[in-house]
Amino acid sequence: MNKRFIFIYMDHGATTPLREEVLETMLPYLKENFGNPSSVYSIAREARKAVEDAREKVAKAIGADPQEIIFTSGGTEADNMAIRGIATAKGKGHIITSSIEHHAVLDTCHALEKEGFAVTYLEVDKYGMVHPEVVEKAITDDTILISIMAANNEVGTIQPLKEIGRLAAEKGITFHTDAVQAIGNMPLDVNELNIDLLSLSGHKFYGPKGIGVLYIRRGTKIRPFFFGGGQEKKMRPGTENVAGIVGLGRAIELAIEEMPEKIRRLQALRDKLIEGILKLDDVRLNGHPTQRLPGNVNVSFQYIEGESLLLSLDLKGIAASSGSACTSGSLDPSHVLMAMGLDHQTAHGSLRLTLGRDNTEEDVEYFLKVIPEVVERLRKMSSIKKANS
Amino acid sequence: MNKRFIFIYMDHGATTPLREEVLETMLPYLKENFGNPSSVYSIAREARKAVEDAREKVAKAIGADPQEIIFTSGGTEADNMAIRGIATAKGKGHIITSSIEHHAVLDTCHALEKEGFAVTYLEVDKYGMVHPEVVEKAITDDTILISIMAANNEVGTIQPLKEIGRLAAEKGITFHTDAVQAIGNMPLDVNELNIDLLSLSGHKFYGPKGIGVLYIRRGTKIRPFFFGGGQEKKMRPGTENVAGIVGLGRAIELAIEEMPEKIRRLQALRDKLIEGILKLDDVRLNGHPTQRLPGNVNVSFQYIEGESLLLSLDLKGIAASSGSACTSGSLDPSHVLMAMGLDHQTAHGSLRLTLGRDNTEEDVEYFLKVIPEVVERLRKMSSIKKANS
Repeated sequence: MNKRFIFIYMDHGATTPLREEVLETMLPYLKENFGNPSSVYSIAREARKAVEDAREKVAKAIGADPQEIIFTSGGTEADNMAIRGIATAKGKGHIITSSIEHHAVLDTCHALEKEGFAVTYLEVDKYGMVHPEVVEKAITDDTILISIMAANNEVGTIQPLKEIGRLAAEKGITFHTDAVQAIGNMPLDVNELNIDLLSLSGHKFYGPKGIGVLYIRRGTKIRPFFFGGGQEKKMRPGTENVAGIVGLGRAIELAIEEMPEKIRRLQALRDKLIEGILKLDDVRLNGHPTQRLPGNVNVSFQYIEGESLLLSLDLKGIAASSGSACTSGSLDPSHVLMAMGLDHQTAHGSLRLTLGRDNTEEDVEYFLKVIPEVVERLRKMSSIKKANS
Repeated sequence: MNKRFIFIYMDHGATTPLREEVLETMLPYLKENFGNPSSVYSIAREARKAVEDAREKVAKAIGADPQEIIFTSGGTEADNMAIRGIATAKGKGHIITSSIEHHAVLDTCHALEKEGFAVTYLEVDKYGMVHPEVVEKAITDDTILISIMAANNEVGTIQPLKEIGRLAAEKGITFHTDAVQAIGNMPLDVNELNIDLLSLSGHKFYGPKGIGVLYIRRGTKIRPFFFGGGQEKKMRPGTENVAGIVGLGRAIELAIEEMPEKIRRLQALRDKLIEGILKLDDVRLNGHPTQRLPGNVNVSFQYIEGESLLLSLDLKGIAASSGSACTSGSLDPSHVLMAMGLDHQTAHGSLRLTLGRDNTEEDVEYFLKVIPEVVERLRKMSSIKKANS
């Protein structure tokens, strides 16, 4: 095997390649059907129709009504809009979230705290699980919103949404879930799960970047995040990103169609990877052993820096990450791993592999062949460094 | 001529077709270079490099530094971010804007009024011009922001940015301009014009929809609009819309290169259109006779509804608008025309033609051939309606 031509992508949690079928559906809207959906003439009406078709596809994927779907510029905007929108519509109150949410949720909550809202950041167990009884205990008479992600982006732990949703519904509290990592990887029905607000991001399920969704249950009192024209029922003005919306619609349709088979396949690859990696010395699995996203592997190697590991793997043609792509460049250890009780050194030595639809048995075998030598070399280097320092 | 095959697009103010050269530059980032720019491996580094190249192109186009360029999801987000960002960074104060701004500016100001900020909506003259002395009179010790658009989207009137910018600089007040319609149609140098914040939208200059820019002068105290990851120096988190950013970068580069020639060509076509239309009875030109965007024609026909006119023109293969695409569907007359002193009926009978780089002499001739019969027929119908009612 010529190593120069190996490229194994195991970072689907960071972003996924745009599917060819999806790009095909987008191209007419990047070419001849370029009209502004708000205009009245024929090419504009074509664009309008395409946007509404996509809205129906998204609604169908999560058991919602098309009128409850708002297109945003991505998951971050959807999270900001959901949380700030509920908070500012109420004016004051208490928000419950977890300490392992994505920064789009956490940092919005931090900002709202400075603006006078109260926020509880729930603790998680050692697997990164938010327990419903912990949620229940945190609820006060002032609680206006519970925001708990469907599945964690770093360690893949799937949260007990059904129980949390039931609690929220019983108490009449709005329930938001960031389902950016979950969609296409587990069934999500907003009515079964009592979800009032749900965030999605196109590029995490083989759709385009720069487009996302916020589901808003009918009757939810929420303030718009943007102000401007009349688009998206005034909830999200601005000329629609037609091609992006069309691509997201097609991508979510495919993701749902192929989900059962994909889950089976990825779980098998994931478990093989985990099993192989855990044979090495001084390594641990982060996240829940079974309640985890089908393609997610997160491990910590003792005596190794995650960054060095990534660079070594890149040289071997393997694309992976040490946590969330959104925070790379930061020297702080993962807030998720820290919340799960890991010490700094173990958190720093973490590696996230997120498998996707193109990954094969051979990819997994290649990784398992490469990883022991990489780890050994890095550990040798670090012990030399220590001895010399 | 077979009318079925005629399609003449005269609504470039609503949106422009994506240029083929621009789509070509985007495709690699919709295909093989799909990496998340925040990741560390090779395809991610390619994406990062492409984003930074585009940032340099945007900076060059407006005389800014690349570090002063933030990518947004479009013009509406840029306007919201600029105005809310300054307001919330200051906490309180007085904002000056004009009564003919885009709704992204006006509605953001309305929202801020409800939150305790004071806003002055300046009057304009009969040509839709904001006079610098009117701005000067409105300034108080509490004024924190002046937001005046570079050129109006409906009537094309070009505002005296230089004088307003000088005033703002003298008084130490932050100056924002919505340059969504202006870019590529007039020179814009943020230093010459003393601009602190400037909004752009990709799809108005032959780039993609769903991507925009906010220029923020170094040292400007502004609060982020979104919260989340570390992207765009934390000013605008969320995974970058790489293909959109790359497309916008190439589009603005082309727009600036071709600007002098385009201005000359469109001005000639525009003036021919205006001259031809004004030969009809009971019609008037809206906007400034000379200080107007090179491709903008806005006229009011007495005794005609703008909507009926658009539908008749659509049947003739001509795509036009009756005002801003963002507010179509609304039955209110244009706020811009009303602010210019037109009565309801005249405002309702308005037609906007916005020419672009594909329009030709033949398009103009075809329009001038078609318009008299269309206007005559609609006026006959409306007089019959009136006689019967």
